[in-house]
Amino acid sequence: MQAALDELRQAFAGRLLVDEADKAPFLTDWRRKWTGQAVAVAQPDSAADVAAVVRWCAQHRIAVVPQGGNTGLSGGATPDTSGRTLVLSLTRLNKVRAIDTINNTLTVEAGVTLQQVQDAAREAGRLFPLSLAAEGTCTIGGNLANNAGGVQVLRYGNARELCLGLEAVTAQGELWDGLRGLRKDNTGYDLRDLFIGSEGTLGVITAAVLKLHPLPAAQVAAFVAVPDPAAALQLLQLAQSRLGAGLTAFELMSDTCIALVEKHVDSARLPLAERSPWYVLLEVSDNVDEAHASAAIEGLLEAALEQELATDAALSATLAQFQALWALREDISESQGAEGRTIKHDIALPISRIADFIATMGAEIERRWPGERLVVFGHLGDGNLHYNLSPAADRLGAEHRAAFEALEKPINQCVHDAVVAHGGSISAEHGLGVLRRDESARHKSAVELRLMQAVKAALDPHGLMNPGKLLPPNQEHSE
Amino acid sequence: MQAALDELRQAFAGRLLVDEADKAPFLTDWRRKWTGQAVAVAQPDSAADVAAVVRWCAQHRIAVVPQGGNTGLSGGATPDTSGRTLVLSLTRLNKVRAIDTINNTLTVEAGVTLQQVQDAAREAGRLFPLSLAAEGTCTIGGNLANNAGGVQVLRYGNARELCLGLEAVTAQGELWDGLRGLRKDNTGYDLRDLFIGSEGTLGVITAAVLKLHPLPAAQVAAFVAVPDPAAALQLLQLAQSRLGAGLTAFELMSDTCIALVEKHVDSARLPLAERSPWYVLLEVSDNVDEAHASAAIEGLLEAALEQELATDAALSATLAQFQALWALREDISESQGAEGRTIKHDIALPISRIADFIATMGAEIERRWPGERLVVFGHLGDGNLHYNLSPAADRLGAEHRAAFEALEKPINQCVHDAVVAHGGSISAEHGLGVLRRDESARHKSAVELRLMQAVKAALDPHGLMNPGKLLPPNQEHSE
Repeated sequence: MQAALDELRQAFAGRLLVDEADKAPFLTDWRRKWTGQAVAVAQPDSAADVAAVVRWCAQHRIAVVPQGGNTGLSGGATPDTSGRTLVLSLTRLNKVRAIDTINNTLTVEAGVTLQQVQDAAREAGRLFPLSLAAEGTCTIGGNLANNAGGVQVLRYGNARELCLGLEAVTAQGELWDGLRGLRKDNTGYDLRDLFIGSEGTLGVITAAVLKLHPLPAAQVAAFVAVPDPAAALQLLQLAQSRLGAGLTAFELMSDTCIALVEKHVDSARLPLAERSPWYVLLEVSDNVDEAHASAAIEGLLEAALEQELATDAALSATLAQFQALWALREDISESQGAEGRTIKHDIALPISRIADFIATMGAEIERRWPGERLVVFGHLGDGNLHYNLSPAADRLGAEHRAAFEALEKPINQCVHDAVVAHGGSISAEHGLGVLRRDESARHKSAVELRLMQAVKAALDPHGLMNPGKLLPPNQEHSE
Repeated sequence: MQAALDELRQAFAGRLLVDEADKAPFLTDWRRKWTGQAVAVAQPDSAADVAAVVRWCAQHRIAVVPQGGNTGLSGGATPDTSGRTLVLSLTRLNKVRAIDTINNTLTVEAGVTLQQVQDAAREAGRLFPLSLAAEGTCTIGGNLANNAGGVQVLRYGNARELCLGLEAVTAQGELWDGLRGLRKDNTGYDLRDLFIGSEGTLGVITAAVLKLHPLPAAQVAAFVAVPDPAAALQLLQLAQSRLGAGLTAFELMSDTCIALVEKHVDSARLPLAERSPWYVLLEVSDNVDEAHASAAIEGLLEAALEQELATDAALSATLAQFQALWALREDISESQGAEGRTIKHDIALPISRIADFIATMGAEIERRWPGERLVVFGHLGDGNLHYNLSPAADRLGAEHRAAFEALEKPINQCVHDAVVAHGGSISAEHGLGVLRRDESARHKSAVELRLMQAVKAALDPHGLMNPGKLLPPNQEHSE
């Protein structure tokens, strides 16, 4: 292996980490749920060198685990423990290659962080709307490999809808140049969308042409007390018919979520006089100005109060207030973590089924696991809920930890079975990785699994691209 | 074959046409450019029966040519002349299966016409925005198989972006149920987008879950005289920054186009006092009301006149005027046909390259083929031009016909080479079929062709799904 590694070192210009201490940060996910082994960590700094590394791996039958900012939640970027893998870190592919403000496109390499992408767009007077908690660290390559979602999907779509073209390295180590900046191109199979969301199991994304939008002239947020999820859904419909594409976010959260944020974040406080079992955070983006945006949102809220879809609302009047309202939503995940162990689900449902799901699932969990606290929030406008649990308030001590952890599997199964029964998805925006791989396969039809396996075998016949992620490993070559 | 056909007749409940006269309408495309042969035309009326027909074809190694409304422009739905094919007509799969106005989804079978889809949405108070000339006849299955475009892609996207889930029959005759009505679902490879745009070469789409939008409260159109394409592009940028998602169409056309419409359509007339070399038709959709829409468009036009991006403009004040302005654009294609033979291109370019392309390509064509008339129009907001030619005005007689037809190949090559050199696509929205298949393969990289062939071989190992379309036939099994 030493000779082979020396040969690899010659094959590309980037870094090759082989010492245990150097490799360690790349072998564990950031939540420290998974740890693996790797013969080396390669850090090429060009797409051509990514291809060289993959060719070396193909030749030596070493598996390739692509890794961006290592912020994934499903273990998709952590190697297994076989020791026959190489971690391919993309973070040194960090160039903004081109920006075209007439075509409204930005061409970036895979290792550019999401925040750098947003900043590059904003400096050019444009909006790149993908936004999520890890944006300071996660990379656009990882966002695309996982088809990331976030808070503005309602208006602008997932990562998939924000990408016009890709450059990728195939499992054979060839460089595919699909970097087209076109809104329309019907010249064959949609390889772009095949690589997007494939979690590195079909090839390695090295660059992308991203779609930019006009920067809105003003944004206003409202924090709205609603009696229940059904009312929140009616408010969503009202908002969509009145605001159309001006409605850029519509987030639901329970009072339990906000109470956790108030408990763990000093500056947080409910912007309303009275508590409500549920709240909605909605955001309006406007092409005219702040006054125009406020008038639109005030008109909506007036109608909502009149129709008893909302009981109270606070509107942002300054940027600081806008950020404070958003912080209440964005700090939920960290506050829940600060409270103790968590059981999490990243689910999507048809929007019309959500109220029923929340009601029946909540009752079942209360019946089967009384006292455990549901922490339910999410992107209601996209049908995406983070349907989480925290231990009961009187069972936070270390002595209860094992008992709570033992609930994870049965609660996962209970929630996911109900999600599938409601026509939903058990991974809305986090991908499958290893975390949801088997659970997903359990719920897929035999036809769909066979189609996925056929695609995998066709593009990666030796099963070397991020093996064991997305698809169960023992089924990959069952064709 | 007779015994096998009898067996097929038993295998499904729909119709089986075997008489030459019955089959004939399915064996020629509507422009009568291609004619083929088929052992039979099967007209199943359920997805299960589509699967039964495909299983019979797989067993007997008969190729399957799926056909919807038979309105395609690239010969993708016409069988070849081998006689070893079966035409699978989907028009009897014509049920609207479900509508969900809260989830904003419509589930329809493949044979429902685009206009029936639009009508079903409108009856439920929703918008299905895909719109194109053949909408009264073309089917949604064909629209998805070709990833159709049309006039509102700028705001709402292609057919691909309007589809959340699919049901399809695989080459093995299995029914894949991917009818999910979810905005987010990251549980594996994007099979949906693989089938969309694959022109029936990977399987047969039998049903789809479509995404609906709120119906706009008002729509206003403006017909704007602009000095040249560069000014039209600046007007597009201004319109996008001022109107955002309110800008739902932005069409460019040359004065030659409008003159042809005026010549061949009695009711047509230019709505402006003076002619201009180029015009833009733009449409604003509004969530508030007509006055609000008109104010927005008037503000835009005022700024455009002041910045000398436009020289004059007419605004629609009534529905009749709105339709009359749109008719000027929509009647171009038919008017050009009435003028005589045509040479057509359906190209896409990065929007920033269009003005340069029109200028340099126009000069080259005038130099190499003096007198032939360029008829240039298209969806400027999407970078999609219908870059067509008609014979010179003094060469319309039958005696010039063969000479003009002989220009098709060299002009195609000249235009397409320039398109590719400008980073564009030689098939923006019409698909490849047989018309652009070889030309496309000539411009694709070896890596991209190999990836497409690998996908084809994986999902259709016997090469029975619409063979010879999209990919050159002799390369399909070169793996």
